[in-house]
Amino acid sequence: MKLGVCYYPEHWPEDRWAIDARLMREAGLSVVRIGEFAWAQLEPSVGVFRWDWLDRAIATLAAEGLQIVLGTPTATPPAWLARTWPEILQVDAQGRRREFGSRRHYCANSPVYRQHTARIVTALVERYGAHPAVIGWQIDNEFGCHDTARCYCPRCAQAFRVWLQARYGTLDELNEAWGTAFWSQWYTDWSQIEPPFLAVTEQNVSQVLDYGRFSSDSWVDYERRQVDLLRKGAPGKFITHNLMGNFPDLDYHALARPLDFVVWDSYPTGYAEQMAMQLYHPDDPRPALAYDVGDPYVTGFCHDVMRGVKNLPFWVMEQQCGNVNWSEYNTGVRDGAVRLWTWHALACGAEAVVYFRWRACRFAQEQMHSGLRHHDASAAVGYRDVVCMADDRALMAAVAAMPCASEVAILSDYHDLWALSLQPHRKDFSYQRHQFRFYRALQHWGIPTDIVSPDIDLRQYKLVLAPSAFLVDAQLAAILKAYAEGGGKLLLGVRSGFKTTSNLVTDLPLPGLLRELVGVTVTDWHGLPPGVNYSVEYDGRGIEAGFWAESLIPDPDVDVLARFTSPPFAPRAALTARRVGDSGGRALYLGWYPTPDQAEAIVARVSDLAGVRRMAQPLPEGVVMVRRGAYAILLNFSCHAQAIEIAGQRVLVPSRDVVIID
Amino acid sequence: MKLGVCYYPEHWPEDRWAIDARLMREAGLSVVRIGEFAWAQLEPSVGVFRWDWLDRAIATLAAEGLQIVLGTPTATPPAWLARTWPEILQVDAQGRRREFGSRRHYCANSPVYRQHTARIVTALVERYGAHPAVIGWQIDNEFGCHDTARCYCPRCAQAFRVWLQARYGTLDELNEAWGTAFWSQWYTDWSQIEPPFLAVTEQNVSQVLDYGRFSSDSWVDYERRQVDLLRKGAPGKFITHNLMGNFPDLDYHALARPLDFVVWDSYPTGYAEQMAMQLYHPDDPRPALAYDVGDPYVTGFCHDVMRGVKNLPFWVMEQQCGNVNWSEYNTGVRDGAVRLWTWHALACGAEAVVYFRWRACRFAQEQMHSGLRHHDASAAVGYRDVVCMADDRALMAAVAAMPCASEVAILSDYHDLWALSLQPHRKDFSYQRHQFRFYRALQHWGIPTDIVSPDIDLRQYKLVLAPSAFLVDAQLAAILKAYAEGGGKLLLGVRSGFKTTSNLVTDLPLPGLLRELVGVTVTDWHGLPPGVNYSVEYDGRGIEAGFWAESLIPDPDVDVLARFTSPPFAPRAALTARRVGDSGGRALYLGWYPTPDQAEAIVARVSDLAGVRRMAQPLPEGVVMVRRGAYAILLNFSCHAQAIEIAGQRVLVPSRDVVIID
Amino acid sequence: MKLGVCYYPEHWPEDRWAIDARLMREAGLSVVRIGEFAWAQLEPSVGVFRWDWLDRAIATLAAEGLQIVLGTPTATPPAWLARTWPEILQVDAQGRRREFGSRRHYCANSPVYRQHTARIVTALVERYGAHPAVIGWQIDNEFGCHDTARCYCPRCAQAFRVWLQARYGTLDELNEAWGTAFWSQWYTDWSQIEPPFLAVTEQNVSQVLDYGRFSSDSWVDYERRQVDLLRKGAPGKFITHNLMGNFPDLDYHALARPLDFVVWDSYPTGYAEQMAMQLYHPDDPRPALAYDVGDPYVTGFCHDVMRGVKNLPFWVMEQQCGNVNWSEYNTGVRDGAVRLWTWHALACGAEAVVYFRWRACRFAQEQMHSGLRHHDASAAVGYRDVVCMADDRALMAAVAAMPCASEVAILSDYHDLWALSLQPHRKDFSYQRHQFRFYRALQHWGIPTDIVSPDIDLRQYKLVLAPSAFLVDAQLAAILKAYAEGGGKLLLGVRSGFKTTSNLVTDLPLPGLLRELVGVTVTDWHGLPPGVNYSVEYDGRGIEAGFWAESLIPDPDVDVLARFTSPPFAPRAALTARRVGDSGGRALYLGWYPTPDQAEAIVARVSDLAGVRRMAQPLPEGVVMVRRGAYAILLNFSCHAQAIEIAGQRVLVPSRDVVIID
Repeated sequence: MKLGVCYYPEHWPEDRWAIDARLMREAGLSVVRIGEFAWAQLEPSVGVFRWDWLDRAIATLAAEGLQIVLGTPTATPPAWLARTWPEILQVDAQGRRREFGSRRHYCANSPVYRQHTARIVTALVERYGAHPAVIGWQIDNEFGCHDTARCYCPRCAQAFRVWLQARYGTLDELNEAWGTAFWSQWYTDWSQIEPPFLAVTEQNVSQVLDYGRFSSDSWVDYERRQVDLLRKGAPGKFITHNLMGNFPDLDYHALARPLDFVVWDSYPTGYAEQMAMQLYHPDDPRPALAYDVGDPYVTGFCHDVMRGVKNLPFWVMEQQCGNVNWSEYNTGVRDGAVRLWTWHALACGAEAVVYFRWRACRFAQEQMHSGLRHHDASAAVGYRDVVCMADDRALMAAVAAMPCASEVAILSDYHDLWALSLQPHRKDFSYQRHQFRFYRALQHWGIPTDIVSPDIDLRQYKLVLAPSAFLVDAQLAAILKAYAEGGGKLLLGVRSGFKTTSNLVTDLPLPGLLRELVGVTVTDWHGLPPGVNYSVEYDGRGIEAGFWAESLIPDPDVDVLARFTSPPFAPRAALTARRVGDSGGRALYLGWYPTPDQAEAIVARVSDLAGVRRMAQPLPEGVVMVRRGAYAILLNFSCHAQAIEIAGQRVLVPSRDVVIID
Repeated sequence: MKLGVCYYPEHWPEDRWAIDARLMREAGLSVVRIGEFAWAQLEPSVGVFRWDWLDRAIATLAAEGLQIVLGTPTATPPAWLARTWPEILQVDAQGRRREFGSRRHYCANSPVYRQHTARIVTALVERYGAHPAVIGWQIDNEFGCHDTARCYCPRCAQAFRVWLQARYGTLDELNEAWGTAFWSQWYTDWSQIEPPFLAVTEQNVSQVLDYGRFSSDSWVDYERRQVDLLRKGAPGKFITHNLMGNFPDLDYHALARPLDFVVWDSYPTGYAEQMAMQLYHPDDPRPALAYDVGDPYVTGFCHDVMRGVKNLPFWVMEQQCGNVNWSEYNTGVRDGAVRLWTWHALACGAEAVVYFRWRACRFAQEQMHSGLRHHDASAAVGYRDVVCMADDRALMAAVAAMPCASEVAILSDYHDLWALSLQPHRKDFSYQRHQFRFYRALQHWGIPTDIVSPDIDLRQYKLVLAPSAFLVDAQLAAILKAYAEGGGKLLLGVRSGFKTTSNLVTDLPLPGLLRELVGVTVTDWHGLPPGVNYSVEYDGRGIEAGFWAESLIPDPDVDVLARFTSPPFAPRAALTARRVGDSGGRALYLGWYPTPDQAEAIVARVSDLAGVRRMAQPLPEGVVMVRRGAYAILLNFSCHAQAIEIAGQRVLVPSRDVVIID
Repeated sequence: MKLGVCYYPEHWPEDRWAIDARLMREAGLSVVRIGEFAWAQLEPSVGVFRWDWLDRAIATLAAEGLQIVLGTPTATPPAWLARTWPEILQVDAQGRRREFGSRRHYCANSPVYRQHTARIVTALVERYGAHPAVIGWQIDNEFGCHDTARCYCPRCAQAFRVWLQARYGTLDELNEAWGTAFWSQWYTDWSQIEPPFLAVTEQNVSQVLDYGRFSSDSWVDYERRQVDLLRKGAPGKFITHNLMGNFPDLDYHALARPLDFVVWDSYPTGYAEQMAMQLYHPDDPRPALAYDVGDPYVTGFCHDVMRGVKNLPFWVMEQQCGNVNWSEYNTGVRDGAVRLWTWHALACGAEAVVYFRWRACRFAQEQMHSGLRHHDASAAVGYRDVVCMADDRALMAAVAAMPCASEVAILSDYHDLWALSLQPHRKDFSYQRHQFRFYRALQHWGIPTDIVSPDIDLRQYKLVLAPSAFLVDAQLAAILKAYAEGGGKLLLGVRSGFKTTSNLVTDLPLPGLLRELVGVTVTDWHGLPPGVNYSVEYDGRGIEAGFWAESLIPDPDVDVLARFTSPPFAPRAALTARRVGDSGGRALYLGWYPTPDQAEAIVARVSDLAGVRRMAQPLPEGVVMVRRGAYAILLNFSCHAQAIEIAGQRVLVPSRDVVIID
């Protein structure tokens, strides 16, 4: 378990560097990320490089034994580049050119920008690829951030057509896949196809989904070109990119493929304000938490998404260490919060936690963001916490040596996410919210969970949840069938099996290609407005199913676990289970969108069915338990001390504190 | 009374057509609308036509005895057209070209588009004008939908100047009519005039009103060109266009003039979410209704607006038959809803109800919209309801044979609507809301109401309400005077007589040209913020007048029916009645904007004054009664059975059901 | 004390002018403002002038003894100008050209527009500069209104570069001042610099602040050119411009410098709806006021800001005299309101009150705005009030002869305001709200307050409040030090001393250059989300500090007046006072953002410390007391009569009325 920090030597007088490096070492930090925005300083005009300052900065840091992660600075093309070649700039969905003046203003499909990228990356890796202090590389910074995943410039339009030709071969295939018979959208020439852009009203959802795929692929391709240069020039060094937790605009499974492992940027208080809106429903009761530690369910969901991207341990490459500057309230944080976040990351599988940033920046956009040190170089709350962690380091190392292993997986597919965001039907239906509802129920029971692509080997899990397996092709149907036939327990939720992968509704009885597996036919589905519920009998009790409900007719061999008891769906089934294969496998279909309480009950039931280890009682609000190897790490994000019964003992966890049980 | 369905043979395999046609016939459907979006299939490249598939589709439907309404496909210019002649595309109020990719992307004033329109319409009518199965034509689809009523392209700018020259003759006249003396807006050359567009702040309201008129006229002119071609090529067949209920952007009175009758597209649950916001005030108590049947006051208002457009029976050309896909919640609907809507339409004057659509579409923008059949071709809730209606058909025919005749009219003028929307003064003052407040009061008393242009013969009505006759010229003043002199009872509301038809404030004492008729002078008018009321004595009781109040000085011969009793307007009159002519006529002026309860009381009082037949007690919430000929049709949109006293008997109407009383 | 009115002879038939002039004189009006939007009438085509009508209008008014303030009409370039030279038009922050059709559509930096401006102003002053009835000139109208303070056209971009070269000399200086080391924003050529514009995300806050300064300076420069022409051509006549109270986009201190005195446009009911949102926090309790008189704290704040701009008496050049037309509710107003506003203006230092407008305009944008006379020329509520004021005129004159003198000042700096609006950190932190919180507390204690630039001589004040002296240079630090050393009492609030004037965070311990003066170090600062408070002991009581809190370490010689008593800041100081110099001076630092109640308590304490005269008890809500010379003017804006104890007597002030105590 390494601790590190992000550092910007180019922001500070050179005579400060050695002092800073010493203070880093003294605090127990061993990794420093540098350079990822320094293009203007490294190449002040085209082809003219200035290495001297970076040579000295690296030498100064290395002299204190610090290991360097070097960033390629392509997130910030300098003024000379943007002004001389304005065709590299993105165009937004309103047709406006996105101008120089902040960051990420370039188009991934710009041939000109790709040339400039190759030059700076090649030059960097030639100079530092073999440097012993440089242990790895971060490519660019936060692809897609600030709504830059999708560009609408003419170069993208042209690249989109090429991408479509590769995907569909012929226009006939494309017209069929997109259903252009609708509203005279039939294309008779490739040149007629443009990005989905400024149309009068809603656009073709197959086209928009493909544009999302194309855009994501464009970034993967842009990234891969940097990976290739770095692999060649810096053999043996790791290559990564910093992702953004539950960021939805890029296919992180594809983006992670060429990387050695992924890293991500964790800002719990900012995420608790902003990402939480994507994960909680607007009227969900929100947990009572200490105001300055973020929301551990949100942070944990992001950690688990990040671990699941490659199903590998990860790094936190930017760990909040004081207030942020980009949310609505940017709350100050207290002593203990940074340590709590560090332990949480470790528990969820982080191999390193790198704080952002060393010292609060005096100028430009991020002045109001904290660092481990204040603007005037005095120690800030985060530095104090890091120093305190000296006592934790041995235990941290012991925990870090353990594998992360979950018995439960939630399936995750970015294409499903995009397709549902295009057609939520009920405006607040969201793929991630649906996942998060089950995730939070699992957290309440103390059940570690992987959030993974269906492409990985599912046999490692006792239980797999697919809240909405929306786009289904024969391959996915076969994977799920094989999983259940192998003895796995599979729970499918509403809207599963509804569509083909080109975003057309199946013409089979629902749930389409999954119908045989679950042995159930969905005869009607109803989005329900707020306050409208259909009664269900479940587990001998009457409960109310709202939000989304589906009327199920089970095949004769299928067990009915819940049934509608009021019009219009009574007496149809609401939750079913089919025995699959000879190894004890089950395929369940849940015919409504559960409330948080219902999700908790259902998760307990299917966990027990699958033999998944869980707490006897749900954890109190704000307390998270993560198992890593033999350890149970209990973290308390609430304002009060909490007593937990675990393994026959009663453990008191103070507020903003952590208790590790062996 | 015919039932029908919208069908898109171009979306389905040809071997399915005959099955579908048979199922339609078996369900009792006799009309099928087709073709209105099929331009790309009919003319895959410019001047190259493919009729074979449509020939066969029509033949297949006709073979089952189905009658065809054929649409002209001009709402959806194909890709080849939009890409080759991009000058046909609209420009929005932000100056952005509206791109191909959905529908309605063309400008009505584009000369190029008018040529293309003429070619496809001519070709269609040459081929099918005399076809015996084709009983009528629908022109285009939902003019103005998706905010396309107003375009700001250079061709519109030029056409606007021509329109202005025709209207005003000289620039002096225009400058006078627009009051360009204000803020140096004086025009000295026609070429200086542009559409109202991207100005720094509010624009000249006479200019904006004229741009609304010009835009509406542009669509009327565009429509008329198609009507002329169809009249010539398809003699004896009806010609219509599908309107959108209370849609405010086009002058439906003018748009309907060249048509044989109007049809409209009725989506009660979607309208209950969206149009209801235009008709109810934000803080109005909303009726307690079943969640899946829409709001019968909103639906009924739209039906009555549609019947009033030509003061003729109408068709519902698209009748919701399950969930919609374009509102916020898109609620699922239960058995009974489709039958209820069908009866409601019939009661309000529909001669045919055509369901939208036959089968849920598998692709593109409207995938999530229901049909009578599901995506997989199984029967959906709407189909089940249609089948159930077999038992109703005889009674439906009897009701349909009766005339619709109302004793009360609400006056409606799109120019008033536009002028008030430009200057609501109190932000939530809306012409339609003001109408709807009186309409709903009339509905509560079971009083059928026409919503009509003042251009029709008002003598047929015992009572005429003009909530805000805002723009008044000598002709309108004469019409209203003649009506009252002929014995009619006329109630004018606040803001009547305020303006000239060019949207200037009158320089006469208020209510301007109507002052003599009502015999009242408005000395002051006050918009009032929420919570502020002026006390009024009405009918012996103290009530509170808020929202908008006017201080009235009656002429000596005028009766005062209500009076202000608190500052600042005490002791001025608040409601007056003047006896007009020798036939018992009355002209009343109501000096405040009534609450729903006050509107109910006032409506009862003026109805009694006029001898209008009404219920003794208001109907319960959610129950609508419509009289058609000798029949009283009672429809219950609430969740519970309701008992109604009518004609001395007590009738129980179940939830989502209809009772017809002879 | 003069009363006057705004008049637009160009809007009315010439035969009406003499009647209007006579009615003005009869009402006691003596000043008429005319001409400020009449460019099209004065110069109907380029270089062709029509003076005849204005000659006659002035003669007609002068014949009744009325004095004329003549406006230059440059706020409204006519159509012929905008269409022939479209390069004069502004470009907005979205890159859209702002079109002709309303007003203020020109760019202050357009060389072409400056030529046209010079021609019309020169022609006007040549004709009327020496006219005996013309007593003064108003330049243009409401610079910056309708979001026009900042333009983004190519001419502005070019002028910005020139401005930057003058400010910084070299690119190295600029790069240093802007911190362009961040995110590769380094400029290597002046031509690379553009206005802050359409960037992907937040822009460099030093650049944006400089663009605000440059834009403000552009208007000052544009104004100065008109001032120069008028000074030369109309010697002895006053020159002014009408400002907009607390309008934040322009540096009014700089804009006022070339003017003889400032005038402003006071619309209390509109401001109570709109400006109040800028001054109150969203969850502040709002005072219970009569609905039709505006908010006297908002109106008073604006009056006091306006008086402070030059620290001189001012005029109200546009005084609301009935309903406005540009707010959400535009409430009607009652008798008494106009008189109340007139007295309030006088009490706050107005030398003249000019009503807007004479007669409600019949056409174009402002039809729904009231005048002293209705559209039909009948007397409206404002005219009635003005006539009533005949009885007040002698007392008004006596009050007007007295000086305005305040013992307390609130410091105001537009650059602080802009810098904080760029980085509020907690989204609702606002410089003006922070000022207003203290201002309202002072008003509650009946303490007249100047709101002034730190550039004026502060020795005239016993107490100076600087809620957030955010950008500090050595000069400001010296001014404040000298003030305290001279015996003054200075209270600094949170976020003081945080930044340099180029908007970089200081690298000194906080509060930076003010640290020595207050003798306190801010070790940590926390923005706090809603509901989070840190406990403080103040004055022997426990109170809760929320919103923003700073942990203070005082120097040994500093008194601690309040202290944090809960984590994380306990036991640090929260309010401190340092004795400065030998004359009894004090420098206090308040370490949190006080609630309204806390501000009231703190204001009382520091006022008593400074020997400032105040009421023994806070005034009741809605009652304002202003001292001018020997007079105390008590104004009651509430709905009820209020009894006030003052100078040992009990005074009853009726609702909407004023009592003057000698």
